[in-house]
Amino acid sequence: MGELELIEAIRAALGPYPSRVLTGPGDDASVVRADNVLVTSIDTVVDGVHFSLATHSPADVGHKALATALSDIAAMGAGPGEAYVAVVLPPDFDGALELVEGMRDLAARHGVAMAGGDVVSGPALAITVTVTGWSGAADRLVYRSGAQPGDLLGVTGELGGSGKGLRLLNAGESAPESLVQRHRRPEPLLATGLALAAAGVTSMIDLSDGVATDAGHLARESGVLIEVRLADLPVAPGVESAEFAATAGDDYELLFTVPPDRRDAIERVAATTGTRVTWLGDVRPGGGLVEIRAPGGALVDLSGYEHL
Amino acid sequence: MGELELIEAIRAALGPYPSRVLTGPGDDASVVRADNVLVTSIDTVVDGVHFSLATHSPADVGHKALATALSDIAAMGAGPGEAYVAVVLPPDFDGALELVEGMRDLAARHGVAMAGGDVVSGPALAITVTVTGWSGAADRLVYRSGAQPGDLLGVTGELGGSGKGLRLLNAGESAPESLVQRHRRPEPLLATGLALAAAGVTSMIDLSDGVATDAGHLARESGVLIEVRLADLPVAPGVESAEFAATAGDDYELLFTVPPDRRDAIERVAATTGTRVTWLGDVRPGGGLVEIRAPGGALVDLSGYEHL
Repeated sequence: MGELELIEAIRAALGPYPSRVLTGPGDDASVVRADNVLVTSIDTVVDGVHFSLATHSPADVGHKALATALSDIAAMGAGPGEAYVAVVLPPDFDGALELVEGMRDLAARHGVAMAGGDVVSGPALAITVTVTGWSGAADRLVYRSGAQPGDLLGVTGELGGSGKGLRLLNAGESAPESLVQRHRRPEPLLATGLALAAAGVTSMIDLSDGVATDAGHLARESGVLIEVRLADLPVAPGVESAEFAATAGDDYELLFTVPPDRRDAIERVAATTGTRVTWLGDVRPGGGLVEIRAPGGALVDLSGYEHL
Repeated sequence: MGELELIEAIRAALGPYPSRVLTGPGDDASVVRADNVLVTSIDTVVDGVHFSLATHSPADVGHKALATALSDIAAMGAGPGEAYVAVVLPPDFDGALELVEGMRDLAARHGVAMAGGDVVSGPALAITVTVTGWSGAADRLVYRSGAQPGDLLGVTGELGGSGKGLRLLNAGESAPESLVQRHRRPEPLLATGLALAAAGVTSMIDLSDGVATDAGHLARESGVLIEVRLADLPVAPGVESAEFAATAGDDYELLFTVPPDRRDAIERVAATTGTRVTWLGDVRPGGGLVEIRAPGGALVDLSGYEHL
């Protein structure tokens, strides 16, 4: 398929746009009706660096590239916006349309419009996704910097499954489908992020590097100490230890802080959205650090666990 | 320089943000105060495909990647917005900071904020730029589809200089600095595009592929015939022929249509913004085609001129 044919096929696959997209691909730029505040994130993934076509189908790659970008929008508590996708295609790759279809199916489930793109040639498959989210006001969004001493630390879902799935895939071992799917097809928590923001979380981040590292971002940006109880970590079935679950990363669950008086509101959000929420730590006064504690209170050093 | 050090150096180089950028890099996503309508374009360039580090400095590459993306915003008649930049760095490349500084200097001149980015490793230098522009209303923007029979065809600046500069660079010949600069450092016409939109142009496109091809986009999207008088093409000094100037591309001037009664308004814009405007054709009823005509009216076939 030539480049122009491919672009035509992609446009046909994307189908009609929601009404806020006034002009999609085909002009010099896309035109979209705005809300008051724009939230934007850009991410690139490269074959052989961030994923492998040996273990991921083109549709998996498209899904995951978009999902991980949308996870950043979820972590801001913004509503779904648009995706703009640039793909670098190596000469021998014929999965571009399948890749875009993997994105399209995910985008459609979350009300995200794929409103523009670029297709070019290059030495390796690389995908850059720019995603937008919209909000009515900047103070409805949730930043990394809002955690306060006294807040509780909560997390959605179960941790470590994606990392375990990747480890089994890389070892060539047979892996339970649930773990492999956790790795290949993470689901961005857009609706949950919006609901958590409305319920009063004070800071939030999506778990791309693991609780140990990502709680550090909240602690540093907020200027607080965050204490994590390792024994309370929600470890995914099939994952051998809380230590692995705290460091494996790639889970794309949401880690957040919230004042104790909002705990019930958060648990109602969890029930309404069908999300598991686990309370796994506390925010204390302090200088931008994370302390991981074993039952009994001893400090746990996770620095020997390399990020997968 | 490690990746984290590089990201820190880039942030330091970018300096303070305009007030509409509420949150820059450092959170899950950037947050920007919106106008009513968002205009967005995404473009990727790859070393060895779209440019060569043999003939372009890292700062040239950064400048041009951003300039060509912003040219799409100019062609919509939108005001300057933000740039989100993802860079794939090969192992042996140490020009990343210089590349970003080339972008920053251009962005600053046009009131564009570099509000977010990503830095990853990969096999070849590749830069994806997502640029936004803002408008108070969608009907103040200019689309490819608005040309009407009876309109005049106009173009800014002089054509063919960038293509000639590239040809000389590729041949290893000494080239006049003006032509080389036209190729390495095109200037996006953001202020001119805004002013042309306000003065009533009916369709507009930036010249990336040359008049012959880009007029075809206007003709096709508008459902009209566009006639171009080859003898009236504004050929850049040092360029040998109007045929070359019509097909070389990479000029990033603006090609537009306008009703005859707006001709004076356009010429006032030209005088005010210091832009040369040349009237080089007419819009007629017809089916989406471009006719290039020699003096005397004979049809000229430019299909033998390959896009450079």
